[in-house]
Amino acid sequence: MEEIIKVVIALGGNAIQESGKPPTAEEQLKAVGKTCEKLAGISCQGYEIAVVHGNGPQVGRILLASEYAKDITPPMPFDVCGAMSQGYIGYHIQQQLKKELRKRNRDLPVTTIVTQVVVDQNDPAFQNPTKPIGPFYTKEEADAITRDKGYVMKEDSGRGWRRVVPSPMPKKIVEVDTIGRLWKSTIVIMCGGGGIPVIEDDDLGYEGIAAVIDKDLAAERLAEEMDANILLILTEVERVAINFNKPNQENLSEISCEQAKAYMEEGHFAPGSMLPKIQAAVMFAESKPGRKAIITSLYKAEEALRGESGTLIYN
Amino acid sequence: MEEIIKVVIALGGNAIQESGKPPTAEEQLKAVGKTCEKLAGISCQGYEIAVVHGNGPQVGRILLASEYAKDITPPMPFDVCGAMSQGYIGYHIQQQLKKELRKRNRDLPVTTIVTQVVVDQNDPAFQNPTKPIGPFYTKEEADAITRDKGYVMKEDSGRGWRRVVPSPMPKKIVEVDTIGRLWKSTIVIMCGGGGIPVIEDDDLGYEGIAAVIDKDLAAERLAEEMDANILLILTEVERVAINFNKPNQENLSEISCEQAKAYMEEGHFAPGSMLPKIQAAVMFAESKPGRKAIITSLYKAEEALRGESGTLIYN
Repeated sequence: MEEIIKVVIALGGNAIQESGKPPTAEEQLKAVGKTCEKLAGISCQGYEIAVVHGNGPQVGRILLASEYAKDITPPMPFDVCGAMSQGYIGYHIQQQLKKELRKRNRDLPVTTIVTQVVVDQNDPAFQNPTKPIGPFYTKEEADAITRDKGYVMKEDSGRGWRRVVPSPMPKKIVEVDTIGRLWKSTIVIMCGGGGIPVIEDDDLGYEGIAAVIDKDLAAERLAEEMDANILLILTEVERVAINFNKPNQENLSEISCEQAKAYMEEGHFAPGSMLPKIQAAVMFAESKPGRKAIITSLYKAEEALRGESGTLIYN
Repeated sequence: MEEIIKVVIALGGNAIQESGKPPTAEEQLKAVGKTCEKLAGISCQGYEIAVVHGNGPQVGRILLASEYAKDITPPMPFDVCGAMSQGYIGYHIQQQLKKELRKRNRDLPVTTIVTQVVVDQNDPAFQNPTKPIGPFYTKEEADAITRDKGYVMKEDSGRGWRRVVPSPMPKKIVEVDTIGRLWKSTIVIMCGGGGIPVIEDDDLGYEGIAAVIDKDLAAERLAEEMDANILLILTEVERVAINFNKPNQENLSEISCEQAKAYMEEGHFAPGSMLPKIQAAVMFAESKPGRKAIITSLYKAEEALRGESGTLIYN
């Protein structure tokens, strides 16, 4: 019997909501439908897959509505907004993916697991919150919010003041036992938006905090904990490039972890965009012999898994 | 080896948010914490449990915020609001239950499964929508909404006009395969708010609709599909009563399905309150020999499982 190849797929934002389209639930469902055609295609090749998705725009809009309506109904803490976005996006993916699988006579269960991801309270990210969330405020409003709630507020590119939260590293996936039991027979959707960030408290429990975990790094953590073979990071471009958008741009079909690290040091990859993807890819490829990462676009994913497209990151 | 007893627990609204307390996420987390002490106690007795919860007030507030903020961010369809409430409430339960279990040295996985529940498009409930959802409107606004969106609007006890949606019977749980794989080793939280209501479309898929599925009836469906032994419905009172709130009130420690049906016909149980609980209990007890249902309060649940409290419904 052939060995099953286990793939953790990290979906980029464009897989969930196309830019230029109205950011409605109906448009999201359509975009997710197209994405699920591709995911079903990968599943039909015999790969066992788990899906991780981002939630930036979605959780932003949930928070926005919650803050806007705060005088008529209590506003939601940011960890709860994240949990809500997992329900929202996971529901759409599981509905559409199930349909695409059934069309292909592959009647595999598809399930969204609400996921908490543990971060370290001593992560240096807590000293320097960088991720803006929620509405824009005036300087005066921002000062009042800092006074009342202790939030860190920063000026955002001349557009006003916003709350910023830290982006710590994912340390542990709380619900990992569950996926261990499901992985072999079920397509799981997990760690949505990088997971609901929690810290361990002194009382054996977990406590939600306001933070944003990078979804590619969360997917890396999941892939390691699940002993996956491949971490497949999907984004807008077919291949990673150095000298991106310059006359001497060079698209890479494969790079060793050593090379990738050298390119990162040389500043080839944009922070908050390609950089965390390369970091996640290197981390996974280095974590155990035989593991590899692929960065490509949704539309090239199947080819990339056959070695015919994308950028392979290997150790 | 003793046989494991499988229990599906349907939590009442008071298990998630105490009345009289501000309806904030922080207060919900506290109420859920207390509830989870009781659930952990039941789990420690060796029962295998699955948890179903309501979502009425929560999904109402999500919808309210979404409608209120509609000019700054697109409003969410009602099925999506339901999915969001499953993420929100499920997250709180899984976090608090895990903690209570760990305190008791019972390190069992706890997982929320985003759940779609299929209803029949031809269910007579669609001819007579009864469940009010979302904000209140004036007669003029209500007429405009009916014109623009086709929603059914009804006058609500002199407080204004509201949208009403049907409350059809649950027919099938889409994600039931998943719980089959998890049930033996994991506490699952499923069918939150009665499940996200979907209908089967012509294209092998499911499509979300605006409806409210009774959570006790959804728990009954789950208990049948999972071949549970006991359906445990938790509510505000220790025992079901006939002649409720009258001088001749009689609390029942056990009733046969025959008796229960006779009492239903005599109008002893309030629609939308005790009636669907009795219906669910009878349906489950009649579904297969040996199955039984118990209706009691959260605080009497452990005793009731030992036969020392609550109302037992048997066939």
